[in-house]
Amino acid sequence: MNNLNAFFEPKSIALIGASTKELSIGNVIIKNLLHYGFTGPIYPINPKVDEIRGLKAYPSIIDVPGEVELAHIVIPPPFVPEEVENCGKKGVKAIIINTAGFKEMGAEGQALEDDFLARAKKYGIRIIGPNCQGTINSDPKYKAYCNFTFTFPEEGYISVVAQSGGVGAVIMQAFYDWGIGMRMYTSNGNASDVSIPEVIRHYGNDENTRAIVLYVESLTDPKEFMDIALEVSAKKPILAMTAGRTDKGAEASRSHIGGLAGSISMEVIFKKVGILSFTNLEDLCNAAVAFAYQPIPHGKRVGIITNTGGPSVIAIDELVSNGLEVPPLSEKAKAILKTTMLESASINNPLDVVATAGASHFKSAFEVMMNEENVDNIYVNFVTPPFVDCESVAREFAEAAKNTKKPIVCNYMTDKQKWHATSKILKDGSIPCFDFAETAAKALAAMVRYNDIRSRKKGEIKQFIDSDKNISKIIIEKAKAAKREVLTANEVYSILGAYSIPVSEWRNASKAEEAVEAATKIGFPVVIKADSEKVIHKSDVGGVALNIANEDQVIQTVKEMQEKLKIDDLKFFIQKQQPKGLELIIGAKKEEGLGHLIMFGMGGVFVEIFKDVKFNIAPISDVEAQEMVETIKAVKLIDGYRGNKGVNKKLLIELIQRVSKLVSDNPEIKELDINPVFAFEDRVCAVDARIIL
Amino acid sequence: MNNLNAFFEPKSIALIGASTKELSIGNVIIKNLLHYGFTGPIYPINPKVDEIRGLKAYPSIIDVPGEVELAHIVIPPPFVPEEVENCGKKGVKAIIINTAGFKEMGAEGQALEDDFLARAKKYGIRIIGPNCQGTINSDPKYKAYCNFTFTFPEEGYISVVAQSGGVGAVIMQAFYDWGIGMRMYTSNGNASDVSIPEVIRHYGNDENTRAIVLYVESLTDPKEFMDIALEVSAKKPILAMTAGRTDKGAEASRSHIGGLAGSISMEVIFKKVGILSFTNLEDLCNAAVAFAYQPIPHGKRVGIITNTGGPSVIAIDELVSNGLEVPPLSEKAKAILKTTMLESASINNPLDVVATAGASHFKSAFEVMMNEENVDNIYVNFVTPPFVDCESVAREFAEAAKNTKKPIVCNYMTDKQKWHATSKILKDGSIPCFDFAETAAKALAAMVRYNDIRSRKKGEIKQFIDSDKNISKIIIEKAKAAKREVLTANEVYSILGAYSIPVSEWRNASKAEEAVEAATKIGFPVVIKADSEKVIHKSDVGGVALNIANEDQVIQTVKEMQEKLKIDDLKFFIQKQQPKGLELIIGAKKEEGLGHLIMFGMGGVFVEIFKDVKFNIAPISDVEAQEMVETIKAVKLIDGYRGNKGVNKKLLIELIQRVSKLVSDNPEIKELDINPVFAFEDRVCAVDARIIL
Repeated sequence: MNNLNAFFEPKSIALIGASTKELSIGNVIIKNLLHYGFTGPIYPINPKVDEIRGLKAYPSIIDVPGEVELAHIVIPPPFVPEEVENCGKKGVKAIIINTAGFKEMGAEGQALEDDFLARAKKYGIRIIGPNCQGTINSDPKYKAYCNFTFTFPEEGYISVVAQSGGVGAVIMQAFYDWGIGMRMYTSNGNASDVSIPEVIRHYGNDENTRAIVLYVESLTDPKEFMDIALEVSAKKPILAMTAGRTDKGAEASRSHIGGLAGSISMEVIFKKVGILSFTNLEDLCNAAVAFAYQPIPHGKRVGIITNTGGPSVIAIDELVSNGLEVPPLSEKAKAILKTTMLESASINNPLDVVATAGASHFKSAFEVMMNEENVDNIYVNFVTPPFVDCESVAREFAEAAKNTKKPIVCNYMTDKQKWHATSKILKDGSIPCFDFAETAAKALAAMVRYNDIRSRKKGEIKQFIDSDKNISKIIIEKAKAAKREVLTANEVYSILGAYSIPVSEWRNASKAEEAVEAATKIGFPVVIKADSEKVIHKSDVGGVALNIANEDQVIQTVKEMQEKLKIDDLKFFIQKQQPKGLELIIGAKKEEGLGHLIMFGMGGVFVEIFKDVKFNIAPISDVEAQEMVETIKAVKLIDGYRGNKGVNKKLLIELIQRVSKLVSDNPEIKELDINPVFAFEDRVCAVDARIIL
Repeated sequence: MNNLNAFFEPKSIALIGASTKELSIGNVIIKNLLHYGFTGPIYPINPKVDEIRGLKAYPSIIDVPGEVELAHIVIPPPFVPEEVENCGKKGVKAIIINTAGFKEMGAEGQALEDDFLARAKKYGIRIIGPNCQGTINSDPKYKAYCNFTFTFPEEGYISVVAQSGGVGAVIMQAFYDWGIGMRMYTSNGNASDVSIPEVIRHYGNDENTRAIVLYVESLTDPKEFMDIALEVSAKKPILAMTAGRTDKGAEASRSHIGGLAGSISMEVIFKKVGILSFTNLEDLCNAAVAFAYQPIPHGKRVGIITNTGGPSVIAIDELVSNGLEVPPLSEKAKAILKTTMLESASINNPLDVVATAGASHFKSAFEVMMNEENVDNIYVNFVTPPFVDCESVAREFAEAAKNTKKPIVCNYMTDKQKWHATSKILKDGSIPCFDFAETAAKALAAMVRYNDIRSRKKGEIKQFIDSDKNISKIIIEKAKAAKREVLTANEVYSILGAYSIPVSEWRNASKAEEAVEAATKIGFPVVIKADSEKVIHKSDVGGVALNIANEDQVIQTVKEMQEKLKIDDLKFFIQKQQPKGLELIIGAKKEEGLGHLIMFGMGGVFVEIFKDVKFNIAPISDVEAQEMVETIKAVKLIDGYRGNKGVNKKLLIELIQRVSKLVSDNPEIKELDINPVFAFEDRVCAVDARIIL
């Protein structure tokens, strides 16, 4: 038995803090349980009354005669720990604490939360909340509405978990308005015990959940989330949204519920673990409708059937913008359609059957699209002309959708009241019907996106036998012992060298003669950098000299730096001056609880102005590294462009993987920046780098 | 009397092609007129029957006893011209030809269209269509449903004109589902006579139209459209969408209705004339709802009132992404709220009144936001908690919205059936209520956008007295006389010179000695270009030599070119070699019926990879030129960036205006490209340019 079962399949429920006051949570929850038809006994707990909503009330949970599997607690915070203790004594398995006023209100609340958690642990009780709505299970065996909200879903195939109850309510109501039902629902507020990943796993194991909808603002344990999401997303689609895309939004998000926000890393996490990410809740809900009704497609080619012109132009714009294709029809298909369509029909893709088309025309259109090898998905624009027998047309839709392996979505343009019978045929036929062409197209695009996710290659995390972890460990230990956070150039380049990351050749020197010797060995021109712990921003204080062309210049430069910087033990870092290659940047940044976020993209002005960079989370596989390189906007410059030959892409892909390996081996590294990396036709070369512990 | 009145305010209507067959257009239109309650007489025309839907039928329009102001024609194309003639004889003022099968089907159809147009003109009859739906006017004085569609709008404040009937139907149905009504509707199909601009002007003059909704795929006369739209958009918002953003979509769009498409130029046109452009029909419809109900805001600062957390984070993301601001509350406002809000409320912007807030809390929240100087708009998230008296809360909304100068939008999260009374109070209070936070935020953003449009400065079209039109006229006439389309370098630079566009200094030479003399006068280094009509792609054949540093190199280069190109009268174009400045591009392209489209942006890889360019239509004002410069993504490079000093922005703005003047003066120019323009701290300089007639 899964350990969350008591929340979703409780045999009996007690409500600690039940109230006779109509407009109170302690009354609404009982009303909801009754109204929804909970199949087990309900025990209101209230020492002052005998009966609430016709149910016998008990002074304490201890006094309940039967077993209690799940308890709601809605009393003020100070009284919660003791009631959790009582629940333990009673043998309650799970508690939903709806009451707010704990961790989110400061230290005092945190202490209360710690208190009730310790007591729950003692008795092996699991807790959802506090400061939460609770759960819902629409399964007719339970009909458990353990929640104070107001939407009563029919049975369905989508399960929802939302960190924000408000957003959860919007999602639930959207599904309700669609008439598509819902399977299970959870909003766990402060998440003091049961976490969102645990809920996702529960839904993942539930046979009747076809798609999972997730709204999340922050993650307590990103690793746990990623592991579970990766596992579940391989089995069924997880449609997710986070908020805080803008600085202002992120600010509000943090203030809303304690925890880490930061939507960039969240989107990167979603992508890494195969979660379908949305930036718009309505788009998410629409896509969920398609997932609930239709099979996952096997490709991105769309056949369009339409009985009106304009909306198919809009649909094509939206489909193509989302990476889908609208291929031409085969000659075979056209030949058939020429015999079956009306004369004014446009036999093409989009197939415009024209407004006067009836059932036989739609029937043939569906048959042809179903048999067409170049078509993986079917998109329909269906306006209900008052001069057409639309019910017969709808029956052809339903017939086509039976056992289809190609998903069908429909932009259904009608007055649903007047065309009630037609609408019902479409609904009973599991045709997802949308009011706008864009909406239908976007829902279909989401399904194609999930097909890409489930069929994507994970790739391999390369181990690079030519890398030497020991060198980096020794260097980092030494720096830590000396309480240094910023590594010296020597240290940085030694670590890069240990991972066979190609760097511009370098040597050390402590005086002019050594510098001349180093430069000669490296070969002119060289760069000379002041090398001392005391100099952090070298360029700002004249500690960097470029394009040193000969011995005299070396001597001159060293002298100047010595005079300018006035540091006793000043040393010098001599490095080969590289010709200018394609300027790229690779960075790594440690995110608490997550590991390292790796960034790759165009360097120089590109990174700052066009933000032409891609992120992923270490460890990065070969497939992921390749995708990072190939999805930056400036990939044309890498591939070669207008006479330009381009640069060695394979080495760049390898470089990303080596950096990923480096930081994964050395979790002490907080930040690593290689900026710029110069890429050439035959090689890549790290020109400047820094590491912060 | 406006010349379209007969379409929208007909005193009597005849239907030529009326039918007793239920599923036919000739029957549906009569049904619609009756059902909607047309206030005048309806005359079915059908020689074979006596009565249709209880109305006396007449064999011919001529036989109708009374006056006929408007006629529908739904008979097959070959019979249409004669019936138009009959209408003329009868004194009909306006005709809607619903029948398809004219221009859009080829030459034969075009001939029929020309025929009926000539006859209509003879009698002064205006025509909507053919291949169209027709019109609707919801005004209770007329209730004219001259259309075969199925949505019966209540009275309202939005008027719609759609080139595609299908898209028009979607829009109309969306408004109907919203319950917001509609004022007038037109879908004019082939637009053989009455054009979309004429309809826009009609709506513009209609007092009860508060906002105009437009869907358009192509323009027959862009100038007419622009003139009228500019005039009308100053009075009331025009919300528009075009389709064909993608190549594939543009293809389908052209095939759908004859005419020029090309959504880039359409979006540029929209912007130039102050039309609010949308890329999503649902967003457009939602915005229209806000315009119908609420006043136009005076600024972009939003005060947020919310009784739930998550949706306000989503709202902020959407508002801020759309350029709106969510400023902090004043100390004064906070002081008041501290005394009026619940203890757990978060007194800030967003103002979280918390889920348990009742009417008094919302009342105070509204009062404070209405009085807050930093707030121009009010956004509300309102979830209906079952433990709150929501009707009282809704009454506070309605009270706040009375005579407000700050628009209010609401993300209303509820079950509209169960909270029917609350929903009705909000609707009667003219509160635009949206199901999703994003949707409400986007609708508000559209209103703010319109405020920017109505209050924007048009700027001045500078005439540049230092420009000399005559020089360019002479050069162009000469080239035209010689039937040359590509101007020579001499000609191009002379024309640029005539408009005081700074170019890299240049001279001509016909042999080596002259080249040396020219180079010496210009000053080394120079560029030498082969100058002959016979050499078009100079670079490809070795006709361009850069960085010529001295006399010997000049002689050498001239010799090499003479040998390589083997052209008898080969001449040379000697130009100053410029140091590399910030690489920009300015271009102009003639669009038939529209004038010149001007492009400005980053040159080199930027233009190709990042498409970092802006378009506008000549003539371009100073304000518009400035906006073009300041809205490219790489404006940081122009303004100066990280130690870089930037370049002279004023000269760039002037350059755009000079190019605009140049092409406006010389409409024979098909294409002009100055690529690159180098910009420096103190000057700008056209380095290469071409002109095609």
